[in-house]
Amino acid sequence: MAPLPSWNDGAAKSAILDFVARTTREGGPDYVPPAERIAVFDNDGTLWCEFPLLVQVFFALAEVKRLAQQDPLLLRKPAFRAMIDGDVKALMSLPRKDVLEPAFATHAGMTVEQFHANAWRWLRQAEHPRLGRRFIDNAYVPQRELLGHLRTNGFRTYIVTGGGVEFVRVVAERLYGIPPEQVIGSSTKMKLEDGPDGMVLRKLPELGSFDDRDEKVVNIALHIGRRPVFAFGNSDGDLAMIRYTLAGTGPRMAWYLHHDDATREFAYDRDFRLSPFGEGLDRATELGIGVVSMKRDWNRVFADGDDANDGGSA
Amino acid sequence: MAPLPSWNDGAAKSAILDFVARTTREGGPDYVPPAERIAVFDNDGTLWCEFPLLVQVFFALAEVKRLAQQDPLLLRKPAFRAMIDGDVKALMSLPRKDVLEPAFATHAGMTVEQFHANAWRWLRQAEHPRLGRRFIDNAYVPQRELLGHLRTNGFRTYIVTGGGVEFVRVVAERLYGIPPEQVIGSSTKMKLEDGPDGMVLRKLPELGSFDDRDEKVVNIALHIGRRPVFAFGNSDGDLAMIRYTLAGTGPRMAWYLHHDDATREFAYDRDFRLSPFGEGLDRATELGIGVVSMKRDWNRVFADGDDANDGGSA
Repeated sequence: MAPLPSWNDGAAKSAILDFVARTTREGGPDYVPPAERIAVFDNDGTLWCEFPLLVQVFFALAEVKRLAQQDPLLLRKPAFRAMIDGDVKALMSLPRKDVLEPAFATHAGMTVEQFHANAWRWLRQAEHPRLGRRFIDNAYVPQRELLGHLRTNGFRTYIVTGGGVEFVRVVAERLYGIPPEQVIGSSTKMKLEDGPDGMVLRKLPELGSFDDRDEKVVNIALHIGRRPVFAFGNSDGDLAMIRYTLAGTGPRMAWYLHHDDATREFAYDRDFRLSPFGEGLDRATELGIGVVSMKRDWNRVFADGDDANDGGSA
Repeated sequence: MAPLPSWNDGAAKSAILDFVARTTREGGPDYVPPAERIAVFDNDGTLWCEFPLLVQVFFALAEVKRLAQQDPLLLRKPAFRAMIDGDVKALMSLPRKDVLEPAFATHAGMTVEQFHANAWRWLRQAEHPRLGRRFIDNAYVPQRELLGHLRTNGFRTYIVTGGGVEFVRVVAERLYGIPPEQVIGSSTKMKLEDGPDGMVLRKLPELGSFDDRDEKVVNIALHIGRRPVFAFGNSDGDLAMIRYTLAGTGPRMAWYLHHDDATREFAYDRDFRLSPFGEGLDRATELGIGVVSMKRDWNRVFADGDDANDGGSA
């Protein structure tokens, strides 16, 4: 079967297929040795849907409700109250310290294994409020094909996400064929405990790394120690990683996914406050970044058909 | 050729070969799927010689001299003076802040690429003061064979070192066949710079992670996201990593290398203040950790023959 069947014939598909062919042609001028074939992908908005909220934010909201059911005293805390009431305005007006409390309550205090279990218990059934399917069914089929095509050709595919590394690890292999050691993301600090359940790691209520913007590049250097040759993102948070990739010598390629498809998914870019795509969109041509139009370049988006949603412009 | 030729027949060799055979026998009760075949190795004292000083300490000493030649005003700083004079007593008596200055002067301020170049410029020629060969020729042949045997059988071999990740990356592929993305180590923080030389990362004079003891386990969890099935260390700094490995379900194995060979290398353990092997040695049997005796278990140590050194007991 021809590669990338969910990608329409066009400039983007041709360029990608040509890049893979050139960089894997032994003896060719653009040959890249297998060890250097590193491809990095953002996750939210690049590999799966992030609109209207990041999946992990939906998770945090659900976990806050679950925790408040177990311990109703939490409802006295203004940030917990605001999250449960869906009162975004109230939440935005609180001091940062208050807002971090529910974030840490849902992402720290438990062991890494317990966190994985919490996340999967929710992810395996939680449904997107508009798209009529589970969040884990909102991975983009064309991107899965691209990941597979890269790997078939000896590329190692990494996720480099602003989302939590442990949250994404729960689904990365199942959804994208990306193993835990190839997921780089945000993290809390951890503490080794030697208890009755053996040696375990407990997540602490303290930020380890917020893997966004410049930090994505720092973490690529720390974790991989190689400059990628291929990068794919969808927002300004990916611009540093993309520019770092393109700044290397030899063949390099980088893409932005533009969400311009209100019929099958959502149309948004610079006004999406959680993860805007403004500077990247404006400078893509100047910086040599390709822009994939979901509407034009993909003949399918999701695995089970692209039912019209209830209208998704930002 | 039979595997591990530099290992003498005996309990250690048999146990290692048997472990690899059992865990790779499809359909067998101890089968470990390839994705889970993670082996972690300490570096200093486990893969190459660390006595009488860690190689990276010799490097720092040489770099301090080089920097002081460029900028003699540095000699006014007591820690620089003490290092250049070889005055360990004076160095130990200085405040921590003063001692960190030369460490950061030699490991921060430059880009990661410049640091790699500094390290290689020194490593390619620097000789061990007693063993009569370069530091990079002091990698242990039996360990290289073990790494190769593991990889032939589908294991992924990682270094998890207290040494600097960038320092070790300079030699890890050449000496051990271990690529940069499989080296985990101590780090400085880094800053992304967008300058005339493109996008580069500059090492900052601030600790990122000191990858020793419990932190080795934290970093294994963060970077790999899998519990290893095989671990090899040589000091108390590796005990947490080793115990974490053994605490997993299914087949697990861990080894300590005991430096008991004053003729071909050096004999030291609990009195080696920089990296003692005391608790690990005392508890190995109780904890199910195998102990490899360099004297008994290895018929060769180094690649170019094991000339007697000038006497190496601690």
